Amino acid sequence: MEQEFASTLLERAVSEFAKLPGIGRKTALRLVLYLLKQPVADVRGFGEAVVKLREEIGYCRVCHNISETEVCPICSNPLRDASTVCVVEHVKDVMSIENTHQHHGLYHVLGGLISPMDGIGPQDIEIDSLVERVATGEVKEVILALSATMEGDTTNFYIYRRLAPYPDVRVTMLARGVSVGNEIEYTDELTLGRSILGRTLFSDTFKEDK
Amino acid sequence: MEQEFASTLLERAVSEFAKLPGIGRKTALRLVLYLLKQPVADVRGFGEAVVKLREEIGYCRVCHNISETEVCPICSNPLRDASTVCVVEHVKDVMSIENTHQHHGLYHVLGGLISPMDGIGPQDIEIDSLVERVATGEVKEVILALSATMEGDTTNFYIYRRLAPYPDVRVTMLARGVSVGNEIEYTDELTLGRSILGRTLFSDTFKEDK
Repeated sequence: MEQEFASTLLERAVSEFAKLPGIGRKTALRLVLYLLKQPVADVRGFGEAVVKLREEIGYCRVCHNISETEVCPICSNPLRDASTVCVVEHVKDVMSIENTHQHHGLYHVLGGLISPMDGIGPQDIEIDSLVERVATGEVKEVILALSATMEGDTTNFYIYRRLAPYPDVRVTMLARGVSVGNEIEYTDELTLGRSILGRTLFSDTFKEDK
Repeated sequence: MEQEFASTLLERAVSEFAKLPGIGRKTALRLVLYLLKQPVADVRGFGEAVVKLREEIGYCRVCHNISETEVCPICSNPLRDASTVCVVEHVKDVMSIENTHQHHGLYHVLGGLISPMDGIGPQDIEIDSLVERVATGEVKEVILALSATMEGDTTNFYIYRRLAPYPDVRVTMLARGVSVGNEIEYTDELTLGRSILGRTLFSDTFKEDK
């Protein structure tokens, strides 16, 4: 049910919040009424932080992760292994993988996946720049860390083909299998099948985990 | 788990969103990354709408509802029954009651409830101004539409006592009973007890509803 507001200012603020993903008009109204009760300086701080972020943030020239510098702190860190590049869809995926502390190389953010249904082709995402990075000869391994979806697989295959001229570069992908904490009973058959084909030595798995 | 961000701009925007009620850091990050993908003009529109709302919105001098004019559209509407004033806690409650289309009088927004636990006394909410409105002699009925909580009841009793010097003014409150759609089996005993004491004639109820 559409609510009528006494104020066009209120109406506009609620509409702006309701544009955000996962925020309906009821939640938008709750957030706006909360902000109304906060000190003017705090609300100004909120508005400015958002606008400033959008206006001033840049993207790393090398990996296309968000960055305030031309080359991001990960790419310019001499302690990171520049010969291993992990390819991800989103900026957020970089954060997720960084949180695992298992990847010590660099990243390459595609900014999307190939999706003919949505009209996204290889030229719309950062694949050419990935191939250029590989062409420099510095990269020894490309880890494909894309979603296990049709779009992810399509993009995996496309990148794999584009990297065929560089046979010295290992193209790997994330292991697929039963998620930690998931019960076999509720694991889908495709995943279960793959996890049997890709079974690992028990002793190896626990060595890796330590 | 606290995430590390490559950018202080990002960090700041996420923190600002995470201050909002019901928005955790994960959701905040999702919203911020969504805004990052929107055109600069849209994000500026979002930020400005929020700041403008907080800076420019005012409150009705009479009922304390939010208003862009000194007296809000409800209070200044000659078609509304100025002799009936519905007392509510929040601005939002005005909207909820307006949506029922069952109240044709005016409102009085207290801006809170008496709550000794939170250090909120009668002088912290708009009770004096309510008594002043009643003292003018224009008001014939005060409908107490506060929450059925301890704070709501405390405030109800306090207002009732303050209005005792005006015996010609009817002080009423919202009916308490079984909520529409609720099963008797899951209705608490207090509500059930009250709904028995306050039982209505079947024929009257359906007359009111039509």
